[in-house]
Amino acid sequence: MNQTIHLFDTTLRDGTQGEKVAFSAKDKLRIAQRLDAFGIDYIEGGWPGSNPKDMQFFELARDHTFDHAKVVAFGSTCRANNSPEEDHNIQMLIDAGTPAVSIFGKSWLLHVEEALKIDTMENIRMIHDSVRYLKEHDKEVIYDAEHFFDGYKANPEYALSTIKSAESAGADTLVLCDTNGGTFPNEIRKIVNEVKEHVDTPLGIHAHNDCELAVANTLAAVNSGCVHLQGTVNGYGERCGNANLCSIIPNLQLKQQYQCVPEEKVSELSSLSRFVSEVANLNPNHRQPYVGQSAFAHKGGIHVSAVMKNADTYEHVTPESVGNRRRVLVSDLSGKSNIRYKSDQLGIDLDKESEEIPAIVDKLKQMENEGYQFEAAEASLELLVQKMKKQWEDYFKLEGFRIIVEKNISGDSRTEATIRLTVNGQMEHCAAEGSGPVHALDKALRKAVHRFYPGIADMHLQDYKVRVLDHKDGTDAKVRVLIDSVKNDEPWTTVGVSRNIIDASWEALSDSFNYYLANQHEQTHNKKAI
Amino acid sequence: MNQTIHLFDTTLRDGTQGEKVAFSAKDKLRIAQRLDAFGIDYIEGGWPGSNPKDMQFFELARDHTFDHAKVVAFGSTCRANNSPEEDHNIQMLIDAGTPAVSIFGKSWLLHVEEALKIDTMENIRMIHDSVRYLKEHDKEVIYDAEHFFDGYKANPEYALSTIKSAESAGADTLVLCDTNGGTFPNEIRKIVNEVKEHVDTPLGIHAHNDCELAVANTLAAVNSGCVHLQGTVNGYGERCGNANLCSIIPNLQLKQQYQCVPEEKVSELSSLSRFVSEVANLNPNHRQPYVGQSAFAHKGGIHVSAVMKNADTYEHVTPESVGNRRRVLVSDLSGKSNIRYKSDQLGIDLDKESEEIPAIVDKLKQMENEGYQFEAAEASLELLVQKMKKQWEDYFKLEGFRIIVEKNISGDSRTEATIRLTVNGQMEHCAAEGSGPVHALDKALRKAVHRFYPGIADMHLQDYKVRVLDHKDGTDAKVRVLIDSVKNDEPWTTVGVSRNIIDASWEALSDSFNYYLANQHEQTHNKKAI
Repeated sequence: MNQTIHLFDTTLRDGTQGEKVAFSAKDKLRIAQRLDAFGIDYIEGGWPGSNPKDMQFFELARDHTFDHAKVVAFGSTCRANNSPEEDHNIQMLIDAGTPAVSIFGKSWLLHVEEALKIDTMENIRMIHDSVRYLKEHDKEVIYDAEHFFDGYKANPEYALSTIKSAESAGADTLVLCDTNGGTFPNEIRKIVNEVKEHVDTPLGIHAHNDCELAVANTLAAVNSGCVHLQGTVNGYGERCGNANLCSIIPNLQLKQQYQCVPEEKVSELSSLSRFVSEVANLNPNHRQPYVGQSAFAHKGGIHVSAVMKNADTYEHVTPESVGNRRRVLVSDLSGKSNIRYKSDQLGIDLDKESEEIPAIVDKLKQMENEGYQFEAAEASLELLVQKMKKQWEDYFKLEGFRIIVEKNISGDSRTEATIRLTVNGQMEHCAAEGSGPVHALDKALRKAVHRFYPGIADMHLQDYKVRVLDHKDGTDAKVRVLIDSVKNDEPWTTVGVSRNIIDASWEALSDSFNYYLANQHEQTHNKKAI
Repeated sequence: MNQTIHLFDTTLRDGTQGEKVAFSAKDKLRIAQRLDAFGIDYIEGGWPGSNPKDMQFFELARDHTFDHAKVVAFGSTCRANNSPEEDHNIQMLIDAGTPAVSIFGKSWLLHVEEALKIDTMENIRMIHDSVRYLKEHDKEVIYDAEHFFDGYKANPEYALSTIKSAESAGADTLVLCDTNGGTFPNEIRKIVNEVKEHVDTPLGIHAHNDCELAVANTLAAVNSGCVHLQGTVNGYGERCGNANLCSIIPNLQLKQQYQCVPEEKVSELSSLSRFVSEVANLNPNHRQPYVGQSAFAHKGGIHVSAVMKNADTYEHVTPESVGNRRRVLVSDLSGKSNIRYKSDQLGIDLDKESEEIPAIVDKLKQMENEGYQFEAAEASLELLVQKMKKQWEDYFKLEGFRIIVEKNISGDSRTEATIRLTVNGQMEHCAAEGSGPVHALDKALRKAVHRFYPGIADMHLQDYKVRVLDHKDGTDAKVRVLIDSVKNDEPWTTVGVSRNIIDASWEALSDSFNYYLANQHEQTHNKKAI
C-alpha cells in the first residue's frame, strides 16, 4: 500500500486543553523541535490572541528553523456579521507568521442555532470568507469542520454544505472532526465514504477518545481514504484526550504499511513519548500501548518461558521497533537469566560470569524498590557500580552543611547555606546565598570545590526535578530528586532519594559533581584523591 | 436491538497479570461482591493451584452467596500425554467448587510446535478430553481459544479444528482470544463472521489493548455476533491491559442499545471504577472515558460557554448516565463563562454582570502565566476571588519563620522550624522538628495555630507535589507546589509559586489552613478575625 499520510500534531494546542496539561512558551518550543526532528508534518502551536503564552510561542518559533514540519496557528472563522479584514482573531492568525493555519467552523445546526444563535447561511458565509481571506494571504489553510460527524448525522446536507463552502474558497485540507468523541468506527467509515463522493479536497480526521475509540476511529477514517490525521503525543487533550499518535503511527506504519514518518524514526517513538510526558511533568502511563514501560512486560510464568523461546508467542511487534524494551517482571520464576538479562541491558562492564553481578543487581533492585530510578540517572548508576567494585573515592569529603531559610513579615525569604568540606585533608568552609535552599547549597558547594578543582566552573545544573513518591503522607513523604547537569551540551543525570528534600538534593548534587570531576580527571585521578 | 450480552469479568485473574496490580484474597472477595451487585454475569477469580492466594479466594467465595454472578475458576487444558483424571491442574479446577470454569487451549500452531513442542493432534485431544471431563463434572465450561486470531491468520483450518473439538466435547461458550492484542477491528469482523459459519456454540471475545484497540475489537466482535465478552474494570491486565469494561458497557448499552447490565446499574459505573482502583491502590486515570474525573471536564472558554447553553454541544452522553459529573476548569484558556460557572459552583456570590469578573479573569491569566495552576487548586482560587472582592482577612498573620537544616558528617540532616504569628494581636512563637523543611514548617504552623483554633487538629495534609517550572535554570528555577489537604474524606487543594521552594510551600500551606478555617467558622467568622 505505502500510501503517505500527513501527520498533524496538536499536543501544543488541543493537548493543552486536557486537565493538568500546561506548557510554557519555551516548553512548547522544545516539544516542537522534537516533533520536527521526529518527522511530524504539521505542528499546531496554539491559538494566537487567546492568551499571551501562545503568541509568545509563535514569536519564538519564528526565530527557529524547522527542518521538516510546518508550524500551524489555530483559530476560528471570523465572527457573525464581521468581515475577516476586521476580525481580530483572523488578524492574529496572520500576525502569528506561520506558513499554515487551521481554522474551525461549525458543521452542526445545534451549534449554529443554539450556541452561536446565528443564521445558518451566515455560518456558511463566515467559513467561505475566512478561508478565502487566509488563502489571499498565502496561507496553507487546514479547515477543521468541528462536530462534523454529529452535524452530518443530524443533517447531512447542511454539514456537507459547510465543507463545500470551505472547499470552494480554496481550503487545502478538509478535516472531519469528532469533537465530542461520541462517534463509532462503523459511522466514521460510512460517513467518510459518503463525503468522498461530494468533495475533491484531501480529507483529514480529528478524533477524541470519549468512547475509548479515538485510535480505531482514526484508523477507520484513514482506511476509508483520509490522508491527513490529527492527534497528540500520549493522547493528551480535552476531557478524555485526543487520538494518540503514539498508537496510531505504529498501527499504520508497522502493521498496515502506510508511510507516516521516515522508516528509521518509528524506533524513536518511546523516547518521544517519555520526553513529552517529562516536559509536561505528568507520570507516564505505564500501560500505554507500544511506548509504556509495561507494554512489553511479561509477568505470567507461562508467558515468560514462551517469550524466552520465541518472543512472537506473546509480542505482536518487537519492542525495538518502537524503541521500547522487553521486561521480565520479578517473580519467583525469574532467576539467573533475569539477572543476566538486566545487567546486559545496563551495559555494566563486568565479566558475564562475575560473582559481583548478583550483588550489584540485588543492590539495584533494593534501591529501585526504595524509590531510586536509575533508568533516568545513568551517572548515579555508574558511580554506584564503581563503588561496589571498590574502585572509587569521592573527590571531596563533606564535613557538614547548614541551611537557613528566614522569612520576615516584609516579604520573600532569605536563604543562606554554609558548607565545610575537605580535599586531601585541607578544609574549605564557604557560605552562599541562593533563591532557595538547594540553590544556596549548590552555590556554596561550587565555591568550596572551586579552590581544588577550578574546572568545576565549566559545568552547570540544567534541570532539577522533584517527585513525591509516597502519596498520602503529605509533607512527610519520601521524595526523589533528579538533577540534569551539563558541560558543553553533554548532559548527565543523577538521583537522590530521602524523606528530606535537602538530603535527596545533596545526594544528587554530590553525585553530579563527582561524576563530572571523574570524567575531567580520568587520566590523572589516582582513585585516592581525598 | 436489545440483544443480551453476557459479561465476563477477569479483573481478578487477567487483571492481576498487569504490572502493579495485586489483590489479597479478601480484596478479591470485596471486588467480587461489588461486581455481583453491579450485574456482572461471570466473575473469574483466579487460577486455583497456581498460587495459594487464588485457592484461598475460592474458599472464601464458597461461603458467600452471590445474587446474580457465577464465580469462575480458570486453568489450562490437561497436559500432553496426560488424562484429565490424572491432571493436577484440572483436579484443582474441580476442587475450586465453582459453578463454571474457563479453560484455555492452544489455537496457534506456533505455540503448539514451538512453545509446547507437542504433536498437533495431541493438542486437539487435550482440548476435547479436558472439556468433556469438566462437563461430566457438571461444570459450565467456557473454552478460551488462546491466540485464536493469530492462529486463524496463520492456519484457519487448524484454528477452527481446535474450537470444533471443544464444541464437540460440549463446551458452553467458545471464546475467541486476541491474546497478544495485535489484531485490528476489520480482521476481527472478518474472522468472527467466518467462524460463525462453522460452529453453533455461542461465541465470546477476549481482547487485549496492545494496539489501543481492545474496546473497538470487542465492539466489532459483538456487532458481528459474539454474545459473551470478557474484560476488566479500568482495563487492568497483562502488558497494556485487557478490554476495558468501563468503556464497553456504556458504549454497548447507552449507545448501541444492547442489554449488558440492569438499566439502573449503568449509573453506578464511575463508582465501581473508583472502588476497584482504590482497592488496587492505583491512582485512577483521570482521562479514562466515561468514568475519569476529566471525562466531562471543560477547559476551553468556548466549550464552557456552549455547555452552559446546552450540554449536548460538547458532551456525547450525560455525566449522570454513568454516575460521573460535569466540571469546569479554570486556566489561562478560560473566558468569563468559566469564572461565572466556577463561582456559582463554589458558592461565591458574584453578580453575573459583575464588573469584577474581567479583573478576576485577567488576574488569573497573569498568575497562570507566572506558573500558578488553579484548575487543580480550587481552594486557592476561591481565596483569590474572595480577596479580590475585598471580603477576606487571613485567620492568622505571619510575623516570620526560620528553618534550619543541618547535616553533619555522621549522617542524615536535622531540620528545625520556628514560626511567629499573631491572631487578634496575640503572638504565638513555636518550634518543631520535621523530616524535611516543609514538614517542619507544617508542624510548627500547626502548633502555633492550634492555640487559637483547636479544630485544626482534624485536618491533615495528604499529598505534596512539586514541579519545577523553568527548566534550564537548574536549582535556581521557579517551582510550583500543590498541597492536597483533607478532613473526613473531604479534600481540597492549594497552590504556591516561587523561586524559593520554601516560599511556594508556605503560600500553599497558608492557603490550605485558611481555607479550612474559613469553612469551619463560616457562621462565626466576621471577616475581621485578625
